[in-house]
Amino acid sequence: MSKYVFGVDVGGTSVKMGLFDKEGNILDKWEIPTRTEDGGKNILPDVAKSIQSKMKEKGIEKEEVIGAGLGAPGPIDAEGTVYGAVNLGWETFSIRDTLAQLLDIHVKAGNDANVAALGEMWKGGGKGFKNLVAVTLGTGVGGGIIVNGEILTGASGAGGEIGHIHVQDGETEVCGCGNTGCLEEYASATGVVRLARRALEASSEPSLLRKRPVELLSAKAVFDAVKEKDALAIQIAEQFGEYLGKGLGVIAGVVNPEIFVIGGGVSKAGDILFDFIKPYFDKTVFKGCKNVEFALATLGNDAGIYGAAKLVLE
Amino acid sequence: MSKYVFGVDVGGTSVKMGLFDKEGNILDKWEIPTRTEDGGKNILPDVAKSIQSKMKEKGIEKEEVIGAGLGAPGPIDAEGTVYGAVNLGWETFSIRDTLAQLLDIHVKAGNDANVAALGEMWKGGGKGFKNLVAVTLGTGVGGGIIVNGEILTGASGAGGEIGHIHVQDGETEVCGCGNTGCLEEYASATGVVRLARRALEASSEPSLLRKRPVELLSAKAVFDAVKEKDALAIQIAEQFGEYLGKGLGVIAGVVNPEIFVIGGGVSKAGDILFDFIKPYFDKTVFKGCKNVEFALATLGNDAGIYGAAKLVLE
Repeated sequence: MSKYVFGVDVGGTSVKMGLFDKEGNILDKWEIPTRTEDGGKNILPDVAKSIQSKMKEKGIEKEEVIGAGLGAPGPIDAEGTVYGAVNLGWETFSIRDTLAQLLDIHVKAGNDANVAALGEMWKGGGKGFKNLVAVTLGTGVGGGIIVNGEILTGASGAGGEIGHIHVQDGETEVCGCGNTGCLEEYASATGVVRLARRALEASSEPSLLRKRPVELLSAKAVFDAVKEKDALAIQIAEQFGEYLGKGLGVIAGVVNPEIFVIGGGVSKAGDILFDFIKPYFDKTVFKGCKNVEFALATLGNDAGIYGAAKLVLE
Repeated sequence: MSKYVFGVDVGGTSVKMGLFDKEGNILDKWEIPTRTEDGGKNILPDVAKSIQSKMKEKGIEKEEVIGAGLGAPGPIDAEGTVYGAVNLGWETFSIRDTLAQLLDIHVKAGNDANVAALGEMWKGGGKGFKNLVAVTLGTGVGGGIIVNGEILTGASGAGGEIGHIHVQDGETEVCGCGNTGCLEEYASATGVVRLARRALEASSEPSLLRKRPVELLSAKAVFDAVKEKDALAIQIAEQFGEYLGKGLGVIAGVVNPEIFVIGGGVSKAGDILFDFIKPYFDKTVFKGCKNVEFALATLGNDAGIYGAAKLVLE
C-alpha cells in the first residue's frame, strides 16, 4: 500500500530532498549538490539516484511510493514542462516525464515559489486556508498564489510572479528582470538596502545605520534599528511598507485571498513588518477584499520540499 | 435525456434570461423586470416562474433540463451564497439553495462580472482560451478572471474586482467604493470623462471636444475625436491607456493570463483602444507574462446569460 512521498526542491547550488508520509510528517531530509554544468543534464538523474538510494536505505519498495514532487526555479506549467531555468542551465523540457521515466513513479513539478506557497498552506503559516498568497522577501521578491487549494500556475507558469509588478514610475535603477519600478526593487532585502542607501544620502540625520560602512547595510540592520526606535530606520521601513502594502492591496483586489503568508530573509524581522505594511494595505485595498489575514511563513527553507510532496498528493 | 440549460443574468432593472442547448446554442432569449422592493424577495420566485412558463411553452420536461445558472451583482462565493447585493435589495443568503428549491433542478450562481467572463471564454472574444481576464469598461470598471477554465471566485467572492485596484496616489475625487485612486476612476466611461474634463480645464488648446457643452462630454466623444486625430483627445486617450495599460500589466504579473477580453461601453471605440493600452502594458509588465493577447468582447449584454449557462455545465 502506497504510503510514502518524496519532495524535491532544486536550487542553484543544492537540491533539498525530503521523505514524507502521506499525512505530511517528515521522515527524513537531506541535500545533494546541484550540478548545473552541461546544461544541467545531471540534475534529474542525480535526484533519481538519490531517491533510489534512500528507498534502498529505508527498505521502501516502489509500490509503497505515491510519487515524487519537484519544485525548481523558472516558469513551469501545470503539465510539468519547464520553459528554461537560467540558474540551472535548463532549456525547455518536461521535468515530469523525464523524472517519471528515470524513477518509474508518479511525478509532478512546479515553480519553486509556487510549490513553497503550497507547502506553507499545507503545513506552515497558511495552514487551514485554501486561498492564500505567499510572499517571499529574499534577495528578490517571489510569490505563489493558491486558489481553492491549488497553485495558480498561469498560462506560461509565471502566475504569482509578484516581485515584478510595476509599483513606481520614474525609477532609474534597473531591476534584474530588465524593467524599472518593480516591487522587488523596494521590498526585497536588496530593495530595503536601496531605500536605506537613498535615505542616508538624502539627509545627514544621525542614525544607528551610519555606525557601519554603507557596504554593510542590510535589511536586518534596518529592522534592528527600527526596533531601537531609530528615526531614519523607521522612515525607511515606512517606505518599504508603503510599497509592499499598496502592492499587496492590488494583489488582494485581483485574487481576493484569505491570507498573506510572508517569508524570506526580510521576514525574520518578525511581526513588526506588519505594522509598516498594513496601514498602506488598509488604505488602498478594495473593501470587498480587505478582510485578509497576515502571517509569517514558518517552514523556512523546508517550504519547498513540503510543497513538492503535497503537489503529488493532490 | 438532459439537453437544455437556462442562463439567468440579474440586473438592477431587468433580468435577462436565455435557453440554451448544452453545446451553447441559444434557443430563446427574453427579459423580465427586476422587482427590487421588499429586499428583492420576489426576484428569484419571478425567475423560477419565468423558467417554468418557458418550459411549458416549449414543452420541456424537468428531466430534460441540466440546470440553471445565475449571475448577479455583488460578492457571491463558490457555493452560490451572496453576501449582500445593494442594487437588488438582497442581504446574505444562498441563491443556489433558494432557486434550486423553487425549481427542483440543479442551480449554480456567481458574480455577474465573473459569469460574463466565463461567457466570453465560452462563446465570445476569449473563445478557445482557458486563462483569461475579462475587463468591462462601463460606467465602472468590472472584471472577471478565469483560471484553467474556471472562475477565480476568491475568498469572499470578490476575485477579479479589478476596477478598484489602486493606481494613483494623491487623487482627490473619491471613487464609488470609498477609496481614491482606483483604476475605475480613470479607465471607466466616467473615468475617461474625468480625464477629458481635467485636460480641457488645464489648457485652452483648441479641440473638437470643446464644440459641445462640457456636460455632454462622453468617452465616445473622446474616442471619436481621437479618430479625427484631435490632439487633445489623443492626449486624453494616452492618459487612459497609461492607467489601464499599467493596471493590466500588474494583473498579468499576478495571474499570467493568455488573453485580455475588453468589453463594456468604452470598448465600442474598437481596436484603437489597444493602440493606447499596449505600449504602457508592454513597458511595465513582467517579461514572463508579456505574451498576452488583447481582444474585444463580442457577446455584449448577452455575456451574462451565456456565462450563467456555462456555469451549470461545468
